[in-house]
Amino acid sequence: MTTRIRTRVAIVGAGPAGLILSHLLADAGIESVVIDQRSRAEIETTIRAGILEQGTVDLLTAIDPGTRVHTVGQRHDGIELRFQGEGHRIDFPGLVGRSVWLYPQHEALKDLLALRLSQGQDLRFGATAVRVEGVDTATPQVSGTDADGAEFVIDAEFVVGADGSRSVVRQAVAGSSRDGHFREYPFAWFGILCEAPPSAHELIYSNSDDGFALISQRSPEVQRMYFQCDPDADPNALSEAEIWETLQRRVPGTTLTEGRIFQRDVLRFRSFVAHELRHGRAALVGDAAHTVPPTGAKGMNLAVADVIILARALEALLVRNDERLIDAYAETALRRIWKAQHFSWWMTSMLHVAPGTSDFDRLRQIGELRSVVESEAGRTFLAEAYTGWPVES
Amino acid sequence: MTTRIRTRVAIVGAGPAGLILSHLLADAGIESVVIDQRSRAEIETTIRAGILEQGTVDLLTAIDPGTRVHTVGQRHDGIELRFQGEGHRIDFPGLVGRSVWLYPQHEALKDLLALRLSQGQDLRFGATAVRVEGVDTATPQVSGTDADGAEFVIDAEFVVGADGSRSVVRQAVAGSSRDGHFREYPFAWFGILCEAPPSAHELIYSNSDDGFALISQRSPEVQRMYFQCDPDADPNALSEAEIWETLQRRVPGTTLTEGRIFQRDVLRFRSFVAHELRHGRAALVGDAAHTVPPTGAKGMNLAVADVIILARALEALLVRNDERLIDAYAETALRRIWKAQHFSWWMTSMLHVAPGTSDFDRLRQIGELRSVVESEAGRTFLAEAYTGWPVES
Repeated sequence: MTTRIRTRVAIVGAGPAGLILSHLLADAGIESVVIDQRSRAEIETTIRAGILEQGTVDLLTAIDPGTRVHTVGQRHDGIELRFQGEGHRIDFPGLVGRSVWLYPQHEALKDLLALRLSQGQDLRFGATAVRVEGVDTATPQVSGTDADGAEFVIDAEFVVGADGSRSVVRQAVAGSSRDGHFREYPFAWFGILCEAPPSAHELIYSNSDDGFALISQRSPEVQRMYFQCDPDADPNALSEAEIWETLQRRVPGTTLTEGRIFQRDVLRFRSFVAHELRHGRAALVGDAAHTVPPTGAKGMNLAVADVIILARALEALLVRNDERLIDAYAETALRRIWKAQHFSWWMTSMLHVAPGTSDFDRLRQIGELRSVVESEAGRTFLAEAYTGWPVES
Repeated sequence: MTTRIRTRVAIVGAGPAGLILSHLLADAGIESVVIDQRSRAEIETTIRAGILEQGTVDLLTAIDPGTRVHTVGQRHDGIELRFQGEGHRIDFPGLVGRSVWLYPQHEALKDLLALRLSQGQDLRFGATAVRVEGVDTATPQVSGTDADGAEFVIDAEFVVGADGSRSVVRQAVAGSSRDGHFREYPFAWFGILCEAPPSAHELIYSNSDDGFALISQRSPEVQRMYFQCDPDADPNALSEAEIWETLQRRVPGTTLTEGRIFQRDVLRFRSFVAHELRHGRAALVGDAAHTVPPTGAKGMNLAVADVIILARALEALLVRNDERLIDAYAETALRRIWKAQHFSWWMTSMLHVAPGTSDFDRLRQIGELRSVVESEAGRTFLAEAYTGWPVES
């Protein structure tokens, strides 16, 4: 027997994009259902990075005065670019009057899930979307199966794909789930989580002859660090000593605090933008719409910007029957997406040393880094992008 | 019979770098001899571009109060970046308080040659340097042949290679005349000179789906325009109508003023930096030391910066017997050279459409252009580089 669910907006995916959208819609008086194929425990324990732009933090605070971003999260007033063994700080408040926050994504998700449930809003775990139909009509549907294998159909007025890079909704919007603009990179990040106090109080983006490394933080007891590696690297092939030796060599001038490594993974780099972000009564947000390499810390923030633009458009459509903003959604969102794709590519290409790079390009890269850090305009240009451009409406 | 010439500094090459250096040395009381294998007429009629940075103009004015840069040259207070059919002005004085001057290089050379000769300084045309020897001693020599085939030897205390990209002096400095860091590009510029009044009052750098075009000026009656082409293109393969059609299509929104095309050429793009800029009592400046692609208009300005740094170093060495600045010459000059190499590469890569560019990279490029023009910091970062960074000492 198939369960029929009726709502105004069906949101597939309970990640940051889907949950924030559901809250913004609720604030506008628009009922929604959020489904996710994962369990609540899985969502809350999947550790992902989280550098939040000022605007993202402002939005989380507006949605949920109880957000722990200001208590558990840490404000970062800058990053360091390191090259040729020297560190150069990019002072965010001094340059652009804004900051970023280090707040791991799963912590933000705990807040957003708790708020959604405490408000009695419809949120279903273990519910897998299988098909999206009728997006060319005023009554699109999402069909799927719940955790027990029972079928359900959500009858909605709009369907949103916030279901990540393997989006099921994308097929209904873009024609094919893999239809988009791609770019691949000849390197990946070898990431570790370790039991150690911070080696630095802000992120260090280090360019060295041996390749890139990022010294990051997670909490007072746990640190996250990355170094550039081959995309096919086996995360278990290196000893702990080799990992520390590799990291240390790439961050000359800082003695890293070592500790037991309890997680290691290889993160492949990929840039992607779907060919279509909206078709009829369905739209894509976040990783369903685009993927960025992690160097610019844009992933979650770009998802939030999509959602702000889409929430305004859905309010116009569903409350005032005004189609103009939803018709402009893709174009408006894509302007920011392509700027963020460029920024992510730029940070990646400026800081990594691609295999086979010529001496010319390596020395040009040092010239580029020097141009940026020696110029207040260069530092400001970087800081504006890193801390986040204003969201267009 | 070999003519022996004795001087303090032997300067090979009577281009902007060699001539400006000779004037700066004369002002410091240091005698020099400048030789060039070309005739005066050839030097004065070889038409080359000339966008002069503010600092270059200031230096020309200080050397020669009679310079015609302020009368024949034109001050340009900005450039236009055009993409997706829209123009975006980069306002130099408003952003960085500086301007650039359009003053063709051969006009600057006429001024510098006339000044040198009016001052009775030693300047020899048709004198071809063949060998540089003794750079590891205090008495290096330049040997060569004059216009009549007679041999000469210049006994100097220092030898400067200002002899362009096919430098003879480079061999004595860098070990091999081709020893350096290279980069090539998969496109070139098809350039024309035509009899027509200006189509625009400032340079237009236009990025279009069909490729790059640059609308430039030369004088009230003669215009210089370029469009991206294949490096192997035959300059005579296109009709005048085809040339105008190509240019016009790449600068949508502006109607170009057409006129008889009286010169056409294909300029290949190349980046080069010699491995060594100084060895013992010899040093390289300008194109002998480096080549940049023309998009950033850095060629002559970078030569002038080399010369300012080297003149200070030679004054310390030859007047005060202080070797510190000459020992630092290469490092000091290279810091600026690699920034300028990056800037030239950046302008080139941001504005041209390389053959086989992916949709992703084309859309990223539009995102990049948009990031720059929408940000005052981005426009300032570009304007700082275009109008010229201060010269380090």
